[in-house]
Amino acid sequence: MTGALMAAEMAEQPEVLARVTARGPVDAELVRKVVPRPLAGIVFLARGSSDNAAVFGRYLAELRAARPAGLAAPSLYTRYHAAVDWHGYLVVALSQSGATPEIISTCEAMRAGGAVVLGISNEPGSPLADAVDLLLTTDAGPERAVPATKTVTAQLAVLATVTSALRAGPGPGSMLAGLPGAVAAVLGDPGPARQLAGRWRGLDRLVVAGRGLAYAAALETALKVKETTGILAEGISTADLLHGPIAAVYAGAPVLLVDGGGPADTDLAELRALLASRQARLASLPVPGGLSEEVHVIAAVTRGQQLAYELARARHLDPDAPAHLSKVTATT
Amino acid sequence: MTGALMAAEMAEQPEVLARVTARGPVDAELVRKVVPRPLAGIVFLARGSSDNAAVFGRYLAELRAARPAGLAAPSLYTRYHAAVDWHGYLVVALSQSGATPEIISTCEAMRAGGAVVLGISNEPGSPLADAVDLLLTTDAGPERAVPATKTVTAQLAVLATVTSALRAGPGPGSMLAGLPGAVAAVLGDPGPARQLAGRWRGLDRLVVAGRGLAYAAALETALKVKETTGILAEGISTADLLHGPIAAVYAGAPVLLVDGGGPADTDLAELRALLASRQARLASLPVPGGLSEEVHVIAAVTRGQQLAYELARARHLDPDAPAHLSKVTATT
Repeated sequence: MTGALMAAEMAEQPEVLARVTARGPVDAELVRKVVPRPLAGIVFLARGSSDNAAVFGRYLAELRAARPAGLAAPSLYTRYHAAVDWHGYLVVALSQSGATPEIISTCEAMRAGGAVVLGISNEPGSPLADAVDLLLTTDAGPERAVPATKTVTAQLAVLATVTSALRAGPGPGSMLAGLPGAVAAVLGDPGPARQLAGRWRGLDRLVVAGRGLAYAAALETALKVKETTGILAEGISTADLLHGPIAAVYAGAPVLLVDGGGPADTDLAELRALLASRQARLASLPVPGGLSEEVHVIAAVTRGQQLAYELARARHLDPDAPAHLSKVTATT
Repeated sequence: MTGALMAAEMAEQPEVLARVTARGPVDAELVRKVVPRPLAGIVFLARGSSDNAAVFGRYLAELRAARPAGLAAPSLYTRYHAAVDWHGYLVVALSQSGATPEIISTCEAMRAGGAVVLGISNEPGSPLADAVDLLLTTDAGPERAVPATKTVTAQLAVLATVTSALRAGPGPGSMLAGLPGAVAAVLGDPGPARQLAGRWRGLDRLVVAGRGLAYAAALETALKVKETTGILAEGISTADLLHGPIAAVYAGAPVLLVDGGGPADTDLAELRALLASRQARLASLPVPGGLSEEVHVIAAVTRGQQLAYELARARHLDPDAPAHLSKVTATT
């Protein structure tokens, strides 16, 4: 019941992110060389935590490439054996282990269909390297705790770099400026997450809401809380929460609001007012100000890790090795 | 506490679906005339129940058009004001009311960027009609209960038609053969849903899992249960449930498995064995056999409506007008 691994790996994040951001301009140049021109679209392929990183990449890619982006449906390839024309597409495949069979076989099918496939993995020698046109590593070192932390924030930083290469404009450097420091500031200030975990330690369910880039942070926070505690946490778009499923909130589920420091935060004010008028249990966690939206959201992901860690500790669970979860997925 | 509206609207489904499927060949011809050639990709734009229908359309479109398909992120247009090149894309916008401001303004932005936009709505005279290149109606008549039922299954049938027009092959007729009868058979046999609702009436949370086309039915069933009961129901891909968040299951949440009668059902057997070995509470609801996968999944959506209705009744709630939910969304 220590959580020592997860804590140590979370603490490595500023150092990992400093490495990844320093490498940004070189990575961006490699990406520029493989992007298909003209570019028909960009699709992200992933599972689990990586799927949440993919949501972050999907928003940034459509904004920066000025071409439509989306998320892949692997079952079309692994179950339906679809034969699809992928010419003109950049596929970005994310897998921390680089060994998820479903991701590898879907990469192969998409590449056979004409896609240029870029892989992002923490394992340079993994099978993913052989299934892609270019592999970028997250360079985070071995991750042994079951809940992925440093590999996730490193993926997000690499995605910021990759998408910055999709058009002219500010390079990855300026956009990610201050990232290691912002994450270090969050890690050095565990009080807010610890206090919230104390208050919420008896939860059996939780809604985590965000919009725009922060939607990715909401999804990832919900997944971390699920993994470390078994709480049925659901990440949801603020817009969906305002639209339909909000009835569930009135059945007593507390809501964690994740802001992104960007233009989608206008929704949060509306939601906050609505939920307050219904006496819903509501919380948010602070992130350092004055950052780019990308850095703000990555720092919010770290806050979510902290909450998941503290909730597990408050519930006397071991966040390093949640019951019945294994590290490498065997999804085919 | 009657549920009379929802029950009446559910009961109209065989008739509505007979109308929509009879119109299929004409609709398919209209779609063929507007699809951009060459086709770069297909994107679905929706919120709420319509977003679940969009998932169904997304799978079918990629299979049939043999070009990548995906789901839109409206906040990129309504919040970030992204300027994206949509040339070569078919966008399919779904809105039962045809009046959701967010959907209308995103349609306008995508069309201005070069997309061909096809609308699917229950309201032929709605603002959506003016924002699209072609509007197809679900022709389901007024829907007054807050949980959408007949408009959802009608959307699914229209999506089967639309996607059948994306390539040569069997027309919509053969694929949707038997749909009204299959839905009538489900409606005429409420016993299984009623019994399950009796057993599960005390739930505060529920996981609904499916894969491939049935993933859409799982998402829609979870949404209906949420809307009518306030139970925190989460729709999830079977693959994700096998991968990570499964820890939550062990915290006691029961799982409803939704099969699709198609090639993705292989996952269900694996999941069933895993969950049984963990003593998870597990259920599934029967759907008539011998159907195309499209018809099977639409019938499964009707089963999900039935479960939501029966759960609300068993909890002494009014499924027609769940607390704090209004019919037309004002999400901007």
